[in-house]
Amino acid sequence: MISHTPVPTQWVGPILFRGPVVEGPISAPLATYETPLWPSTARGAGVSRHSGGIQVSLVDERMSRSIALRAHDGAAATAAWQSIKARQEEVAAVVATTSRFARLVELNRQIVGNLLYIRIECVTGDASGHNMVTKAAEAVQGWILSEYPMLAYSTISGNLCTDKKASAVNGILGRGKYAVAEVEIPRKILTRVLRTSAEKMVRLNYEKNYVGGTLAGSLRSANAHFANMLLGFYLATGQDAANIIEASQGFVHCEARGEDLYFSCTLPNLIMGSVGAGKGIPSIEENLSRMGCRQPGEPGDNARRLAAICAGVVLCGELSLLAAQTNPGELVRTHMEMER
Amino acid sequence: MISHTPVPTQWVGPILFRGPVVEGPISAPLATYETPLWPSTARGAGVSRHSGGIQVSLVDERMSRSIALRAHDGAAATAAWQSIKARQEEVAAVVATTSRFARLVELNRQIVGNLLYIRIECVTGDASGHNMVTKAAEAVQGWILSEYPMLAYSTISGNLCTDKKASAVNGILGRGKYAVAEVEIPRKILTRVLRTSAEKMVRLNYEKNYVGGTLAGSLRSANAHFANMLLGFYLATGQDAANIIEASQGFVHCEARGEDLYFSCTLPNLIMGSVGAGKGIPSIEENLSRMGCRQPGEPGDNARRLAAICAGVVLCGELSLLAAQTNPGELVRTHMEMER
Amino acid sequence: MISHTPVPTQWVGPILFRGPVVEGPISAPLATYETPLWPSTARGAGVSRHSGGIQVSLVDERMSRSIALRAHDGAAATAAWQSIKARQEEVAAVVATTSRFARLVELNRQIVGNLLYIRIECVTGDASGHNMVTKAAEAVQGWILSEYPMLAYSTISGNLCTDKKASAVNGILGRGKYAVAEVEIPRKILTRVLRTSAEKMVRLNYEKNYVGGTLAGSLRSANAHFANMLLGFYLATGQDAANIIEASQGFVHCEARGEDLYFSCTLPNLIMGSVGAGKGIPSIEENLSRMGCRQPGEPGDNARRLAAICAGVVLCGELSLLAAQTNPGELVRTHMEMER
Amino acid sequence: MISHTPVPTQWVGPILFRGPVVEGPISAPLATYETPLWPSTARGAGVSRHSGGIQVSLVDERMSRSIALRAHDGAAATAAWQSIKARQEEVAAVVATTSRFARLVELNRQIVGNLLYIRIECVTGDASGHNMVTKAAEAVQGWILSEYPMLAYSTISGNLCTDKKASAVNGILGRGKYAVAEVEIPRKILTRVLRTSAEKMVRLNYEKNYVGGTLAGSLRSANAHFANMLLGFYLATGQDAANIIEASQGFVHCEARGEDLYFSCTLPNLIMGSVGAGKGIPSIEENLSRMGCRQPGEPGDNARRLAAICAGVVLCGELSLLAAQTNPGELVRTHMEMER
Repeated sequence: MISHTPVPTQWVGPILFRGPVVEGPISAPLATYETPLWPSTARGAGVSRHSGGIQVSLVDERMSRSIALRAHDGAAATAAWQSIKARQEEVAAVVATTSRFARLVELNRQIVGNLLYIRIECVTGDASGHNMVTKAAEAVQGWILSEYPMLAYSTISGNLCTDKKASAVNGILGRGKYAVAEVEIPRKILTRVLRTSAEKMVRLNYEKNYVGGTLAGSLRSANAHFANMLLGFYLATGQDAANIIEASQGFVHCEARGEDLYFSCTLPNLIMGSVGAGKGIPSIEENLSRMGCRQPGEPGDNARRLAAICAGVVLCGELSLLAAQTNPGELVRTHMEMER
Repeated sequence: MISHTPVPTQWVGPILFRGPVVEGPISAPLATYETPLWPSTARGAGVSRHSGGIQVSLVDERMSRSIALRAHDGAAATAAWQSIKARQEEVAAVVATTSRFARLVELNRQIVGNLLYIRIECVTGDASGHNMVTKAAEAVQGWILSEYPMLAYSTISGNLCTDKKASAVNGILGRGKYAVAEVEIPRKILTRVLRTSAEKMVRLNYEKNYVGGTLAGSLRSANAHFANMLLGFYLATGQDAANIIEASQGFVHCEARGEDLYFSCTLPNLIMGSVGAGKGIPSIEENLSRMGCRQPGEPGDNARRLAAICAGVVLCGELSLLAAQTNPGELVRTHMEMER
Repeated sequence: MISHTPVPTQWVGPILFRGPVVEGPISAPLATYETPLWPSTARGAGVSRHSGGIQVSLVDERMSRSIALRAHDGAAATAAWQSIKARQEEVAAVVATTSRFARLVELNRQIVGNLLYIRIECVTGDASGHNMVTKAAEAVQGWILSEYPMLAYSTISGNLCTDKKASAVNGILGRGKYAVAEVEIPRKILTRVLRTSAEKMVRLNYEKNYVGGTLAGSLRSANAHFANMLLGFYLATGQDAANIIEASQGFVHCEARGEDLYFSCTLPNLIMGSVGAGKGIPSIEENLSRMGCRQPGEPGDNARRLAAICAGVVLCGELSLLAAQTNPGELVRTHMEMER
Repeated sequence: MISHTPVPTQWVGPILFRGPVVEGPISAPLATYETPLWPSTARGAGVSRHSGGIQVSLVDERMSRSIALRAHDGAAATAAWQSIKARQEEVAAVVATTSRFARLVELNRQIVGNLLYIRIECVTGDASGHNMVTKAAEAVQGWILSEYPMLAYSTISGNLCTDKKASAVNGILGRGKYAVAEVEIPRKILTRVLRTSAEKMVRLNYEKNYVGGTLAGSLRSANAHFANMLLGFYLATGQDAANIIEASQGFVHCEARGEDLYFSCTLPNLIMGSVGAGKGIPSIEENLSRMGCRQPGEPGDNARRLAAICAGVVLCGELSLLAAQTNPGELVRTHMEMER
């Protein structure tokens, strides 16, 4: 009864990386029906090779789940929260019983009247961690309900998590890897490979991604199409691609440095795992292995490497599309050529 | 050089529909690595069959692209806009030259200082319409640049479109199909099939999707996991699944009617096409045919049918997960069973 | 039983305007407890006089109220909406019975399951129009309830209006005056009066108002402190100052033109009236008269003039604060001096 | 050169409070041009007296300012941030040199490419704390610039603060007092005083504040008119009323308890001080004294009391308006009566 939908996949690259998380030339697979994405991202990969490589930094990592509880009133909810927060080490011990890898990082809260929402944030090793943190949340909720009889069950997932929904909370409190990918592109490469200039790119990023995005009522999002590269990479590496919703809420920042261009893509919510659902499929395993994400090492190393590669792929695709949009007519023309 | 990533796919259903866009029992394919989604959505499909069927209404349809232009100052931008708007029929004629199917529906604008953003909104037949409206936008932009020499090119896509980004504009001005799926579930079915009650569902929807979502800083989004069903259906029908970002910005609304439950899922930005990129693949074509979306008829009929089925699938999956969350422990327990 | 809270007020200016809505040197009153606002805004006024004046354009005007209605299901809600929309002229006639000045401009809708929200948008002459449009909405709702017995009352104000709440809808569909204020500042004035440069201002606007604002999860808002000038001007002119919530959702856009600076403030939701609550107070009347907003003329002329002056005041204050922030230490130092 | 704008002011109440922050009957002043606000809020005060009083809890308090810094690249920005965070005690010592009252509570960060934004959060005694935290931020920024020569000045205020702008960050990380006001209203009072029922109130809150608000693209805001009461109370107590922008981003939550109504207003960003700008004015001082906010005690006690009273006032006004909107025709009719 289970069939397979074959999503066209091509390797793009090599992309040149220059540390600290990942180094050297690495190609990456993109599974997508939008095949012009391949040559476009490949163009960005070419830029990386001629610009000394893309540097990726990881600022943070965590996965979250929020439980919701009901008290008689706000005073009781507040008192319960303050007590739970003061017993964070006990909560961490509860979390630790549910998994070898989950480790509590932080508890956050929101209180609305008599309702108490607790956001449980954990590191989760090489897994993206949805299930791990759900199990942890269930255990914590059970512990709370037995320790605090004045609290009642509302839900195991109170949407403060928040999973796969357009929101502000994930970027502010953290969900997934927080990755910064950046490259400095010489004028010559801007001209030859990207047919653009630093000045034109800076202006476009401001007028399109920031001003245009603000007009659209965008929420913590300033980019052209992070989502396209994310979808392709997520599918090809067995990720839950519905998480592109929060993962795509990221930022392009670039500045002219003389006539060269500093160009960066920041992805504060890059949900990514090298183990878990989707990973048992042979072609997925092969993709992960080929990118060096099946190495022995510390838990989390493979997932971090994968996230760093993903951030680099996003940069390549974003750079190429933005460059095309600096020139009237280029987008439609090249898109039509690529589709042939 | 092109391989295929095989995404596990199962047919769910039949889901019972009762018009007006689609009627009778229809099964639907979901391509996903998150395989517990299948039995969960199937449970919702069972509810549809025991509740007289899901009714889907389509409120609107359009696809948008926004060009950006630069004037010397805001007075010039405003004057140019007023003139362009007054010549909307000429703009429509320009649009009509670019495609047999694209037809201009509306022009919207935003002005920021000397910058003018024009959002071009078209109906696009059976295509989701990204490329169609981009070509139309390019032609309109060319026409404007020649008719209004005081305006200069900023970008072909000014992010007021906005494509695949978390924003408010798409829901307010419209992008994709605007679909409402709804069902009235008898108490007996709530108890037997969903192990819940109308009262519990109403409370959960409010406390989780609305209060919790508001706390998360959600933007025009109040649901549990529209994104999961959308991803699975999009992949299995050859859609550009990066559009789940706006498509998932939708709303659950339910109310108790006596002890029965009125339950609805509204998707104001359901981007969907029955032709275009992704559709040539044999298994995709077969999926579309099997759902009756390869019928002769008026342009747009197949896409509307497909969108209506998709909305029904979303309802089935959303209903099932929410019902599970009304009971402590059920989510983790059933999820673990399903994963086995 | 009614006393008066005396809010310290000073006239700032003259600000030089150069059309089209308002021309020549005009001073403006600011009522505020934050007295450093006066010299700061006065500095901006000085810049206007040395830069050929501030140009203000009005792009649009309207006031909105949204009623909510309940149908049996979404199909009925959709059908009702389509019928009402088709009878927009009849709705306009209903609106016209409620006031000499209210005139229907547009009907917008949102449908969620069986709920129908209709946003009634009117021009309202010289009034900001809250009460006028509420009365119109009540009449329209009464008419709908009698013409469409399948619809029931939910509320006279369904928050899609939306009044005095942080939202995206007002900027996208329009509420209040849509004003663009702009000025081109010579290098010499930037240096002498503002102690800054075009390059520094452009960079600050981008890094603070756009990137910083995006990080904060701002919604359709990219400015430093529009709210301060709005509050002062609203209080001094008898406006309902709670509307600074939507009025402050506006944008700074500036660009270097050689070494000169093009600087603009766009306020798409500038709610403003020259008649109505707050206007009977003698000192308010005097303020309005002194700014030329008590002239005979077409309905709406005085309110438009007032809005244009307000936009100019906002520009002066915004410009001055941003300039101060381009230099380390200046903000705190000057603020402390001003407070003495 | 300084005059005064006289804003009509009336005392409303007494409102009955029942702890923990404030107890007993207290009246409160509202300065507003919208005079129907007085009888409407007074009706809510009457309800408080017949319902055992309003309970106010304070969950948190802090004031924030965000500096922005520029590094060469994201790796340097990340390394600098990690070092600064590790030296938080030194940062706290720097803060402590700038004021007797400011005490560092937390450092938060956002990194975008090579840009580093640090949000400095302090408690500030009885002051709302804008100036206090700006001085602290300046000192911290100076210290960072001397300790971390790889960082350069971008701005003293990077809009991640964020002051007086519609955003998500303040509610999630905290700014001002986090207040929960709540009351349980017997059926008899609902009927007699408010002409409504628990069921009608619950439904209206859901359909208007949550569903309607979500449709409007509201951001962390679900209420009818918190802004009106906030403006009136802020002006009458010498607050910087531009802060109603974030203060009004709060939530109504109510539920039926049998036929009684639990009703609450949560204000997570209630910026409030009992000392500072605006407070020297005799009538303001008198207002503060009359409400018992000029008592000797611990620093912060008076400001907390004032915030709790304010939250109670908001509840009274919100309750009354919502009740009116449950009945067709009541809003316009009573509004017109009150304006006479």
